[in-house]
Amino acid sequence: MSNSLQLDAQGRLRHLLSIDGLPRDLLVQILDRAADFSRATAGADKKLPNLRGRTVVNLFFEPSTRTRSTFEVAAKRLSADVINLQVSASSTTKGETLLDTLKTMEAMQADLFVVRHDASGAAHFFAEHAAPGVAILNAGDGRHAHPTQGLLDLYTIRAHQGDPATLSVALVGDVLHSRVARSDIHGLRILGCTDIRVIAPPTLIPAGIEQMGARVFHAMEPGLEGVDVVMLLRLQKERMLGAFLPSAAEFHRDFGLTRARFARLKPDAVVMHPGPINRGVEIAGDLAYGERSLILEQVANGILVRMAVMDLILGSDACALSGVP
Amino acid sequence: MSNSLQLDAQGRLRHLLSIDGLPRDLLVQILDRAADFSRATAGADKKLPNLRGRTVVNLFFEPSTRTRSTFEVAAKRLSADVINLQVSASSTTKGETLLDTLKTMEAMQADLFVVRHDASGAAHFFAEHAAPGVAILNAGDGRHAHPTQGLLDLYTIRAHQGDPATLSVALVGDVLHSRVARSDIHGLRILGCTDIRVIAPPTLIPAGIEQMGARVFHAMEPGLEGVDVVMLLRLQKERMLGAFLPSAAEFHRDFGLTRARFARLKPDAVVMHPGPINRGVEIAGDLAYGERSLILEQVANGILVRMAVMDLILGSDACALSGVP
Amino acid sequence: MSNSLQLDAQGRLRHLLSIDGLPRDLLVQILDRAADFSRATAGADKKLPNLRGRTVVNLFFEPSTRTRSTFEVAAKRLSADVINLQVSASSTTKGETLLDTLKTMEAMQADLFVVRHDASGAAHFFAEHAAPGVAILNAGDGRHAHPTQGLLDLYTIRAHQGDPATLSVALVGDVLHSRVARSDIHGLRILGCTDIRVIAPPTLIPAGIEQMGARVFHAMEPGLEGVDVVMLLRLQKERMLGAFLPSAAEFHRDFGLTRARFARLKPDAVVMHPGPINRGVEIAGDLAYGERSLILEQVANGILVRMAVMDLILGSDACALSGVP
Repeated sequence: MSNSLQLDAQGRLRHLLSIDGLPRDLLVQILDRAADFSRATAGADKKLPNLRGRTVVNLFFEPSTRTRSTFEVAAKRLSADVINLQVSASSTTKGETLLDTLKTMEAMQADLFVVRHDASGAAHFFAEHAAPGVAILNAGDGRHAHPTQGLLDLYTIRAHQGDPATLSVALVGDVLHSRVARSDIHGLRILGCTDIRVIAPPTLIPAGIEQMGARVFHAMEPGLEGVDVVMLLRLQKERMLGAFLPSAAEFHRDFGLTRARFARLKPDAVVMHPGPINRGVEIAGDLAYGERSLILEQVANGILVRMAVMDLILGSDACALSGVP
Repeated sequence: MSNSLQLDAQGRLRHLLSIDGLPRDLLVQILDRAADFSRATAGADKKLPNLRGRTVVNLFFEPSTRTRSTFEVAAKRLSADVINLQVSASSTTKGETLLDTLKTMEAMQADLFVVRHDASGAAHFFAEHAAPGVAILNAGDGRHAHPTQGLLDLYTIRAHQGDPATLSVALVGDVLHSRVARSDIHGLRILGCTDIRVIAPPTLIPAGIEQMGARVFHAMEPGLEGVDVVMLLRLQKERMLGAFLPSAAEFHRDFGLTRARFARLKPDAVVMHPGPINRGVEIAGDLAYGERSLILEQVANGILVRMAVMDLILGSDACALSGVP
Repeated sequence: MSNSLQLDAQGRLRHLLSIDGLPRDLLVQILDRAADFSRATAGADKKLPNLRGRTVVNLFFEPSTRTRSTFEVAAKRLSADVINLQVSASSTTKGETLLDTLKTMEAMQADLFVVRHDASGAAHFFAEHAAPGVAILNAGDGRHAHPTQGLLDLYTIRAHQGDPATLSVALVGDVLHSRVARSDIHGLRILGCTDIRVIAPPTLIPAGIEQMGARVFHAMEPGLEGVDVVMLLRLQKERMLGAFLPSAAEFHRDFGLTRARFARLKPDAVVMHPGPINRGVEIAGDLAYGERSLILEQVANGILVRMAVMDLILGSDACALSGVP
């Protein structure tokens, strides 16, 4: 269902709602375009002309300064005009519905909406109702998906460890509530990864995760054995403790990445985390920015994949990068 | 009084505070310039160089994400730098007065202030005290005026129904509290419209409305008979119910635009509303975005008239559009 | 200690944390560059290409719309992309530490952070941990320093009264809590000023002020005698009254600048204030924007010195202004 919305009749990207079901070629095209942008923005002047005169609207129904910034930086690097809309008080207290907000901003000739909402399916809803030529980019909808986070994880894994089809990847922690985990697993599978592991207590494993292609472990030691990539998931401490977990300390004892557990990984294994990290919970403080950590590089790559997605959807495509000096 | 502030010695636009009293030629010039911008921004690259290097400050003393966005988009399309200032907490708790805020921002060499304030006359006050070369654009001051809303309504009416001098226009609903209604009536009169009707319960009709050139109706059926344009006014439900109106449902029963009442209009009549609409109050939900509704086009035209006003005030005028490819 | 952070091995500006200890030549270079920018932005198009493709992040841990605007305007005039981050709710409630915020934004290839924080030393902390090539500009850290305010005061004094080495300057009011006073005194000393006076009640004079090179007066009349410049300091009424001062009225009676006291100054003396002013407290209302007041010119010059600092840190230096038509 997703793809009839995400792709146009020629199979080109129209909206980005979820990694689930994206064709392999398109996924690779996004990652390759991100790599192009990595080279094109290596100098002091990081401005590219690709989206000049286009309008990108950050339409955030829940606040996330950090995520909003990544899309704002990406769009501005491509010379788009960016309008930030934090919707809550103003519009909704006036009774304007979700759809009225979309239609109103569309009418201002916005080209692309970066949508974040705490309800799963919100981005799909917008994409279903968007006018022709208006694109929706999902920046996180409830527990459902956060596709650019998945893309930046895939980009980072590929850049450091090579072809995902040859790798063992372990996701650790709150898989149940993680839209990042869903996006990562879908993406890894599409790129041919056959050894995807999820490591978590039974209360944090969603039903049906094996059908997505992941093997379940309830302890770190066997799960981490020989993996190339450890993807730690953020623990939403405030909502988890009590209901799903006894305490942050116990979680760290059982599922935190410590130096001892680190030794079980492959020698050149890398550690990833979508951020922001809880030091001493998902990971020991000294490992967070250690030499095998790619956490900050994930942030940098997040700009690149967001530029790539915006450019593929809105850019003049074939000649888009040729205009770069 | 307004015009000695709004126009310079050569009759050119200096501030835009109110439509009331604008010369007909100037009003037509604004609408024509907006039409020029409609053509110039029809392509993917909607960026024009007219206000390059100019600084536009959105100085909002009451929050309005939607209105702020329209001015921000318009200014950015013209290549201006835009600074958004939501003034309340920060400045005023420090005891800085209105005037100090204006003078401070002026000193930063801001060229144009888009001012919104809940007090009638705030924009006039700023214009009276603005330094030479600094322009004030009223984005709504209390119940008084919202001139760019009036201009976009005039633009939309002219584009769809032709010369306002030949038309019958009905404004429906809360005329009493509506700065939009005042701006529309003034503008229609200046353009020669002789059949302006206001339809509302007696509690929502301001004193002296007949002197402004409008005929009063207290029922929809006679008021809508044969009109070319129905302009619905937004009902501020939260402040109205109880004091001025029994209930939203009763308002809809008596003054809502329904399909049955729609039949009384001329066959090619159009429906307008400044937004955001209250579905099922001012208008039946299925009519809001129906084929005769211009509600979203009003939003689009709002960008164009705001560009036109900014360009006429700040642009290099004669040659302003010649720089456009 | 400051300078090992602020300057690189060649003595060029790398971060701006405090005026304290800046070499005289560098201070003069900043003021001269600001004067260059004054000429270069005198026309209608105030946009310069110097920081094109660079990203400036306003990282504000305490709200200050006014100060944020000055940096935003300065960066945009130089064609930088600007990201505004008001950090409080979003990031810190997620437990992200100060350092994680810095590292995350650095990873997005931000070039310069304008940091404001209510803790003294926050900007130093960021500068100590910033990656190579990433600059920190202190926009006020607790009571410690506000170097661009100091620079704009020096620029304004030099532009109007000439070489500070020949002048008498009096700072009046809450010296104890004023980061502006510290920055001004350091800067005036570096430029050779030998007659610096502070005028305040004993409760508002910090220990060790004489060691900084200032003479202390506890009454206006002797302190103002024959000075070229009176720098009024802002009284933070809400935190001061009761604890440090009996009342705002008493402060004005004893330390307010009145017309009678004004007569004691040199005939061509000027009055300055960092703003926003408390009318009738630090200064009589009619003097605030009088002919000898430079208060608004300070705001204008604030843009120029901020452009100068950003350009010296990030610009291509030697050829930076040659690109300006």
